[in-house]
Amino acid sequence: MRERLPRKEKFSEWYNELLLRTEIVDVRYPSKGLCVWYPFGFSLRRRIYSILRSLLDVDHQEVLFPLLIPENEFMKESEHIKGFEEEVYWVTKGGSTPLEMPLALRPTSETAIYPMLQLWIRSHVDLPLKIYQIVNTFRYETKHTRPLIRVREITSFKEAHTAHATWAEAEEQVKAALKLYSEFFRRLAIPHVITKRPDWDKFPGADYSMAVDTLMPDGKTLQIGTVHHLGTNFAETFDVRYEDPEGEQRYVNQTCYGISERCVAAVIAVHGDDRGLVLPPEIAPTQIIIIPIVSKGKDALGACKRILDMLKDVYRVVLDNSQERPGAKYYKWEMKGVPLRVEIGPRDMERGEVTLVRRDTFERETVAISKLNDAIEDKLGAIHANLYERARQSFDSRIVDCKTLDEAKTAIRKGMAKISWCGEEECGLCMEDRTGGDILGELAKTKRGECPICGKKTDKVVLMARAY
Amino acid sequence: MRERLPRKEKFSEWYNELLLRTEIVDVRYPSKGLCVWYPFGFSLRRRIYSILRSLLDVDHQEVLFPLLIPENEFMKESEHIKGFEEEVYWVTKGGSTPLEMPLALRPTSETAIYPMLQLWIRSHVDLPLKIYQIVNTFRYETKHTRPLIRVREITSFKEAHTAHATWAEAEEQVKAALKLYSEFFRRLAIPHVITKRPDWDKFPGADYSMAVDTLMPDGKTLQIGTVHHLGTNFAETFDVRYEDPEGEQRYVNQTCYGISERCVAAVIAVHGDDRGLVLPPEIAPTQIIIIPIVSKGKDALGACKRILDMLKDVYRVVLDNSQERPGAKYYKWEMKGVPLRVEIGPRDMERGEVTLVRRDTFERETVAISKLNDAIEDKLGAIHANLYERARQSFDSRIVDCKTLDEAKTAIRKGMAKISWCGEEECGLCMEDRTGGDILGELAKTKRGECPICGKKTDKVVLMARAY
Repeated sequence: MRERLPRKEKFSEWYNELLLRTEIVDVRYPSKGLCVWYPFGFSLRRRIYSILRSLLDVDHQEVLFPLLIPENEFMKESEHIKGFEEEVYWVTKGGSTPLEMPLALRPTSETAIYPMLQLWIRSHVDLPLKIYQIVNTFRYETKHTRPLIRVREITSFKEAHTAHATWAEAEEQVKAALKLYSEFFRRLAIPHVITKRPDWDKFPGADYSMAVDTLMPDGKTLQIGTVHHLGTNFAETFDVRYEDPEGEQRYVNQTCYGISERCVAAVIAVHGDDRGLVLPPEIAPTQIIIIPIVSKGKDALGACKRILDMLKDVYRVVLDNSQERPGAKYYKWEMKGVPLRVEIGPRDMERGEVTLVRRDTFERETVAISKLNDAIEDKLGAIHANLYERARQSFDSRIVDCKTLDEAKTAIRKGMAKISWCGEEECGLCMEDRTGGDILGELAKTKRGECPICGKKTDKVVLMARAY
Repeated sequence: MRERLPRKEKFSEWYNELLLRTEIVDVRYPSKGLCVWYPFGFSLRRRIYSILRSLLDVDHQEVLFPLLIPENEFMKESEHIKGFEEEVYWVTKGGSTPLEMPLALRPTSETAIYPMLQLWIRSHVDLPLKIYQIVNTFRYETKHTRPLIRVREITSFKEAHTAHATWAEAEEQVKAALKLYSEFFRRLAIPHVITKRPDWDKFPGADYSMAVDTLMPDGKTLQIGTVHHLGTNFAETFDVRYEDPEGEQRYVNQTCYGISERCVAAVIAVHGDDRGLVLPPEIAPTQIIIIPIVSKGKDALGACKRILDMLKDVYRVVLDNSQERPGAKYYKWEMKGVPLRVEIGPRDMERGEVTLVRRDTFERETVAISKLNDAIEDKLGAIHANLYERARQSFDSRIVDCKTLDEAKTAIRKGMAKISWCGEEECGLCMEDRTGGDILGELAKTKRGECPICGKKTDKVVLMARAY
């Protein structure tokens, strides 16, 4: 039980072992690529998604569409289906009866939702329309699967879909969605970068795709959010029109944007350390653990209970009153990522004090009980700020300005390479080929330089990396 | 738009029209038996399920298991599979590749969860284990489908699963679950009755099944919750054992219990009236609607906004500031089931008063603004109590004590027949045959009588009805 966690530098082993040991997800389900959320993992997921919900609820409405998409609807948008056809699970039988119309398990819900938007949208007064749902979606992954990162059932796909009168308004929504996602990841203390995906990597059926990426400890990037401008492509296929104020029928312009349980993977991978999880206080299932210290045969259990009562209305706090030794308790709750530990012994009590220990820095501080509430509030705030700052420094230090493909090839061993690109697909694919990395996408900030392949002058700067 | 809702006595038409018009679910999705939750419907669902969650969270832990169940696991429990085999959807293809092992879409999750419990449960200290999940489940219904009542995707199945050391402890859990369900339906003001299902109607693989039923306006019963004692049946199939304190390996005893979106259907059908939805205040997406009244060209919009500000931190309150006439606004918000209407005109303002109108009784009352907060709290409480009392009276009046099958046949046209039964399956099926109704199940209270078929003396009393 007390065997050491693999060190975080062996990222893959560390990650898999941590998920199981802290009971995030159980990968032992008897079918490849499908995982079970343990109670602890689910509780973490619930808190993360409730932040996401609260941000969306400001101006989106939550809905729920069916999982099953009839084949004829699914096949309507030709670009879209080309992007997904090898990954779709098909239901072909009900009981022992073959279905007349096969049903796709949604890989994403454009083709389930947009036939209904045709019924819901009539006039310009129905626009903009902004809806979202949090659902399970499916991809028949043939590559190596990895819990929360590459799975066959994405259990927690938040997908938003919006419709607007004009292309420009839809573009404004793309920006608003990116801002919302940045705020979401800020709340999770996850540093991230936003790029415009190259054309060959955009969402099937989109005009263009934006993506949010973070960096994993092994230097590979993880795409943790995408925002797509769909133009009128789907509207034309599904005939989603509105009457404008002049009485003209026009196609709506659409966007869609999604976040999956990769956001949970990012929290675990970015903040965790050799002792286990390190969780930002806002999402930690337990925020404070109280540990009674025994000294000279005396304990301070009564005092611990009073402190528990004092804190429990404001914080998620647990008193570990078990028979284990303090060291074993520290080990257990550090593994679970509890942000703050309160140690209370008989001597502390005599002095009217307790000891606070931070999970992120292991700093200890003695605090008077009369000042405990303020001290805890400060510490929890400081923990979030430190987690974000620490992660940001590590993130920034792994983005390297490169002039040549050799420099880029070196940079992407540990992180991302920032490099010029002329914008031609041929050159881009050649850059990928020569470095062994992917072009994540184009940055909004431009910089004068030369394409490393054709030598053409360009303002475009892209990020390259090895991606999950 | 202002066309009248069909009268509630034409229940089926009224129900379907109301669901669409108030935007609960949209049945126009292009595949039979699959519905879309509109934003308003989803908001109602969210509130109802958050009550259910809060009741369960007291001593259950929320988890999430995969949707897809490999055929070999699904086929292990022979009774269970017999009960479901004609209703299961099968995924047989990934992309264009036939799957080596077909995957069932869960009709319920015993066969997904119990192989994992084998890994999670080791010792008596791991017991009792109480988990639940809220998920989508699937039944290939060939009968007539009906939104929220008989559907192919049950979008909101709350299923709990527990494991215990002994049969008796599992039986205690059955009782605890029924108590929890009763509390849940009390919060929804839904009268209900609990019976023990006859053997031929129990859950496939259970020792016995308990069920919670309510009465629909057309006199048919709706099963809105079930609780099953599984004994060691599944534990033996899936080898779920624990080590008891003496070191012996024993099979666990299990229970499972479920509630679906039929609880939403019950709220709509039981409380609604000819003007539309009538919602208990706790779950109403909007609890209070403020309507400004114009008199002699003056309005009281400023006052309305002050009242809105005064109430909005405590209640879900909306000010309808649109250009429609008050009558149109009343119609609209009555249809949506808003429990309380606040009307404010210039004359009310001069007097420092407002008018409150209850949705359940249409009673009007003038209240001083200084006493508004208390008055609203009282009214909302009274509305819940009245909805429950009114529904209970209607419910009770439709349960009729019967001595003969002829009496029962008459009683089940409008509700439930209470009648003696010897307990023999042959007699029971004969009773069903002769009345055209189902034996819902046995009541806990006994009463001396005679079986209407064989004439044998018996203490058993059953409820018979036509069931959805």
